Amino acid sequence: MAAGKIYLIPVTLGNQNYNDVIPQGVLEITRSLRLFAVENIRSARRYLRLIDKDFPIDETEFLEFSEHTGESEISKFLEPVDRGKDMGLMSEAGLPGIADPGALLVSAAHRLRIRVIPLSGPSSILLTLISSGLNGQNFTFNGYLPVKPAERSAALKSLEKRSRNGMAQIFMETPYRNQRMVDSILSVCSDDTLLCIATDITLPGENIRTMTIAEWRRNVPSINDRPTVFVIQ
Amino acid sequence: MAAGKIYLIPVTLGNQNYNDVIPQGVLEITRSLRLFAVENIRSARRYLRLIDKDFPIDETEFLEFSEHTGESEISKFLEPVDRGKDMGLMSEAGLPGIADPGALLVSAAHRLRIRVIPLSGPSSILLTLISSGLNGQNFTFNGYLPVKPAERSAALKSLEKRSRNGMAQIFMETPYRNQRMVDSILSVCSDDTLLCIATDITLPGENIRTMTIAEWRRNVPSINDRPTVFVIQ
Repeated sequence: MAAGKIYLIPVTLGNQNYNDVIPQGVLEITRSLRLFAVENIRSARRYLRLIDKDFPIDETEFLEFSEHTGESEISKFLEPVDRGKDMGLMSEAGLPGIADPGALLVSAAHRLRIRVIPLSGPSSILLTLISSGLNGQNFTFNGYLPVKPAERSAALKSLEKRSRNGMAQIFMETPYRNQRMVDSILSVCSDDTLLCIATDITLPGENIRTMTIAEWRRNVPSINDRPTVFVIQ
Repeated sequence: MAAGKIYLIPVTLGNQNYNDVIPQGVLEITRSLRLFAVENIRSARRYLRLIDKDFPIDETEFLEFSEHTGESEISKFLEPVDRGKDMGLMSEAGLPGIADPGALLVSAAHRLRIRVIPLSGPSSILLTLISSGLNGQNFTFNGYLPVKPAERSAALKSLEKRSRNGMAQIFMETPYRNQRMVDSILSVCSDDTLLCIATDITLPGENIRTMTIAEWRRNVPSINDRPTVFVIQ
């Protein structure tokens, strides 16, 4: 095993009250690290200042990466860890490695025999699922669906079909396209399909409702620009 | 909306150091409640005493339920919530509503227009997935697989086939059958399939490794009686 470790650092889903969603022990580890691999440097710095107004940003190294970062560059990121320095992996919101490029770094760590330590924190996907009342014994997370209307309709029909045997189907959309996603779901899916719309999870204004498509059509929600997770079954 | 709310209360995965996995704000809400729907009364009481040695157990009402509890009984559980009392829903470990009967109560809450508030905490399934380096953009949780050897082998083959298009497949086993599960996976799956075995997540002795089936065959792990989550891809 390498001398350094990689901590998978959860961040808030936008909350200022970080003590409501991040455990004390996780905050302590996060504050102690001086090397981070991040999705976005500015939001990483903002989060570290939120949880510690005296966080020594200038003494801290940030490595920014995306789904386009090559394998050799990722391996280079991990050199200081191999030499004994601990690293934190952070996403823009929630847990790293879900619906973001974090898995690239973690799989490289496994190849290099670097220990990976997951820290507990908020996941909008799982918090939505458990609040939906839909099937927590069997579910699929599908990430982002296609943007083009015809492809999106086809994807929704296919998810609805797969959910008929009781498997909950979770998916997301970029917030500014949420309203168009709602329109697509309500026009494509069947009256009796259950739909959970979970908006602003763990934030002020949190709203989580599960109803049939027929009921939603009579109460079309207004969720544009608000982070939302969808589940159908 | 009903006057009372249902809080989805996370509990530790067995940790004594609850501050490492449960946020301060979640501990405060948990300590304030006097009505709980639980999977197991004894472990619920034990957890409440762990996070608050003076917790007033005698002034607290516990409703125990399982996957066999009928819909009318569940509705009856929710009557005090309808009248304005807040309730906590707790599983034996981790988040309620994942791999446990919690969804029965939550779906009844949605029908009765009772507000459901998810609280952030540890999920062995999601913490395993993000630590595995496998696909966090697209994954399925399959719960428990069949116990009979022939059916289990068939289920594993089918999961392996579905994972070939890049969708990570997560599943669990009852701890005392873990070793038999490992034997089945190593005999059924192909050499180049990636397998993550995550044992004792967030606990002392935590061990998370992702390797090919061929590599695991040369390093068969000893995980009997230890809580474990498996991911293949």
